[in-house]
Amino acid sequence: MVRILPGLAQRKMSAPDVMRGEETLLLGAVLERGVSGTICLPGTHSKWVTIDEAEVCGFSTSMTGEIFSLLQSHSVLAHSVQQAAGENDDDEAFQSAVREAVNSPEKILQALFSVRSASLLQQTATARPMRARLSGLLLGLEIAGVRDIAQEQVTLISSGQLAHSYRHALESVGFQCKLIDADEMVLAGLCHAAGQIWPNLKAER
Amino acid sequence: MVRILPGLAQRKMSAPDVMRGEETLLLGAVLERGVSGTICLPGTHSKWVTIDEAEVCGFSTSMTGEIFSLLQSHSVLAHSVQQAAGENDDDEAFQSAVREAVNSPEKILQALFSVRSASLLQQTATARPMRARLSGLLLGLEIAGVRDIAQEQVTLISSGQLAHSYRHALESVGFQCKLIDADEMVLAGLCHAAGQIWPNLKAER
Repeated sequence: MVRILPGLAQRKMSAPDVMRGEETLLLGAVLERGVSGTICLPGTHSKWVTIDEAEVCGFSTSMTGEIFSLLQSHSVLAHSVQQAAGENDDDEAFQSAVREAVNSPEKILQALFSVRSASLLQQTATARPMRARLSGLLLGLEIAGVRDIAQEQVTLISSGQLAHSYRHALESVGFQCKLIDADEMVLAGLCHAAGQIWPNLKAER
Repeated sequence: MVRILPGLAQRKMSAPDVMRGEETLLLGAVLERGVSGTICLPGTHSKWVTIDEAEVCGFSTSMTGEIFSLLQSHSVLAHSVQQAAGENDDDEAFQSAVREAVNSPEKILQALFSVRSASLLQQTATARPMRARLSGLLLGLEIAGVRDIAQEQVTLISSGQLAHSYRHALESVGFQCKLIDADEMVLAGLCHAAGQIWPNLKAER
């Protein structure tokens, strides 16, 4: 028998939002690790969640990952960054871009085009630092957008390279990060939900 | 004989930028209309240019049009706006989104996703107002990014629906717009350039 877990809907007129999938990771993180406060779940549509006493008080979604992917593959910036797809980041270019976007989020449309201009005009602007810059600008913009709701201590639920990039970005602008593995949390959340639906299954674990 | 007019390169380390095509419109606008001050040339890559005594002092490019097009056609937002492609704008949704992005540019990644969430959760969020909202958010973000360099009086070199949208966006946040037709200016610029290259052709006009 297959069951689908429901997501969350935030039915506020001023901040409508939906979550489909991340609630399972949150369930695991709350039950297994007792997380609370500010939680960041990076991804195609990054979620920032506030949890108090095991309850979701509110959340907001940023289109960071999807816009990065569109710009990297389908925009004029592809010429400047695509050769470096999959390569490790250039730390200096990445951090400097994070800080630039956190400090001047209103300049993002211009900063993004500068990736193209720099690669045309500057010899040092090769694909690797430019890809790191593109990534850093978008992560910085995401962080700029949640600064008013985020606590200084952030619980990051993520895995792999994405976890590394977000931790790096957050720490470079003064946040403290506690990393929890996303794959473990999704399993914990699913097992708990299955235990609620099928109590016998729980006994067999 | 075919000649290709060169563009402009801004070789500043802190603000590298390139222009290919718009310089011809600027040439026409300077020679035929004596424009100076803040000039806006909207498009896939919108240019904001400062002209003083018939000379380009500086310019900056925003990826507004390209990002709008990617989001409208290739992102999760396509489900929410694509039915309305080509329709006239919803003025109220457009203006309100322009002001939202001008006032809170740091929230843009969240505001963009809210187009999707609203269309899932709110009955009034149909394709037409959501497309206007998407357009308004991006134009507002572009305006937020040039506020520090733009004068209150802006010369807009554009045509058709794009000219209408930019004028509307700029005026809704307090700019005064003078509109000059882009098609006329490109012709004026090309004719002047041709006259310089082939003086005989000029005599035949």
